[in-house]
Amino acid sequence: MNALGRHVLAEVYGCNRSILDDTSKVQQVMVNAALKAGAEVREVAFHKFSPQGVSGVVVISESHVAVHTWPEYGYAAVDVFTCGTRVDPWNVMDAVIRDLEAENYTATETRRGMFNEPAVQAAS
Amino acid sequence: MNALGRHVLAEVYGCNRSILDDTSKVQQVMVNAALKAGAEVREVAFHKFSPQGVSGVVVISESHVAVHTWPEYGYAAVDVFTCGTRVDPWNVMDAVIRDLEAENYTATETRRGMFNEPAVQAAS
Repeated sequence: MNALGRHVLAEVYGCNRSILDDTSKVQQVMVNAALKAGAEVREVAFHKFSPQGVSGVVVISESHVAVHTWPEYGYAAVDVFTCGTRVDPWNVMDAVIRDLEAENYTATETRRGMFNEPAVQAAS
Repeated sequence: MNALGRHVLAEVYGCNRSILDDTSKVQQVMVNAALKAGAEVREVAFHKFSPQGVSGVVVISESHVAVHTWPEYGYAAVDVFTCGTRVDPWNVMDAVIRDLEAENYTATETRRGMFNEPAVQAAS
């Protein structure tokens, strides 16, 4: 399939609420997940909200990893976008879900940038 | 509907290729689109790739706006995530599509964080 990228969106429930409200821990979870999956981290931007919640994005050479947390619900919205074939977005997502200590989740993958050209690098 | 957020993913084709390869212009398009739609910009992280292409994310109080460009295809993958009711993600997306001078696009919206609790702020 000639897709430029793969974008996985996950609804992550039953997370450890103290992690979800700790900016440095959330950032560590996201960066580590990216690195463990073989991604190259380029930029990191995290923000803590009042009274609670964290938003953050890790820009990787292969695209991005983003998270938004609602500690009051134990919920995190996570998305992982990778281009190329070197990094599997599901490996990133699996690590995030494990390290947020989630009880359950749902996730879907969308293929991004579909071209009918053999020159386009397939993402799977 | 008790969703915490709305996440719009767009495949944007036939863009102005010189804009897509200019980091400062892409950043300007994304930040302006967020601001015009009423979002509050918190963090900005953009990266230029060699030989071409730009990746970037604007972290907003309402979540994030992300873009990845492939100038060689005139293509941009854009996603806009908003929580709360104050900012409509489609207003952000419309501005991005216009300012990238796209010929055509497809876009889908996913509701994020569905809770069966009246206390959850509905995103629509």
